[in-house]
Amino acid sequence: MSLPLTIEQTACCVPRVTATLTSDEAERAARVFKALGDSTRVMLLSLIAGSEGGEACICDLTEPVGLSQGTVSHHMKLLTEAGLVTREQRGKWAYFAVNDGALDAAADALRVR
Amino acid sequence: MSLPLTIEQTACCVPRVTATLTSDEAERAARVFKALGDSTRVMLLSLIAGSEGGEACICDLTEPVGLSQGTVSHHMKLLTEAGLVTREQRGKWAYFAVNDGALDAAADALRVR
Repeated sequence: MSLPLTIEQTACCVPRVTATLTSDEAERAARVFKALGDSTRVMLLSLIAGSEGGEACICDLTEPVGLSQGTVSHHMKLLTEAGLVTREQRGKWAYFAVNDGALDAAADALRVR
Repeated sequence: MSLPLTIEQTACCVPRVTATLTSDEAERAARVFKALGDSTRVMLLSLIAGSEGGEACICDLTEPVGLSQGTVSHHMKLLTEAGLVTREQRGKWAYFAVNDGALDAAADALRVR
């Protein structure tokens, strides 16, 4: 399924959902929004954005959401794969920062022309 | 689970995901993004936005996505419940229009402070 029409794309990686999309572009946009479509992941994103320096250790994220480290790791993996956060390993712990550019791109994708 | 911190909200209905959220607010934001987290729904939104007058009859949406009217109706119900489109019944057919305000609110929710 592909509509042979205008392709409009945002700077980074999320095609504009109000443009005429190919099925590939629709898949790409949906993947990012799917990562945001879970309240735990929204909460984790919110906690990271609100942390000092805009980054948080996974060890500081488990308690506020009341979930095991394994479950939080899984959610963080999905956010990382969607490009919404970046991950940096420092010794034992993984640190995460919100990718402002990816959030901006996702926001732009929702703008009506 | 509720964090007793600043609440920041966009004009309409989607709390800012980069603010410190309560679990209720996280739920509310996630609900809207979940509706966008499916490639068929992104495609339907795109088709409606690209239609003449910014609205489309459900009878014109089934063929481009290659799905039955029942399946398309289900997707349109989820988009309507999320407030992303408005629905108007005209005789036999339902007509849908993109709710620009809701898309703007969802976009604002992703803006970093």
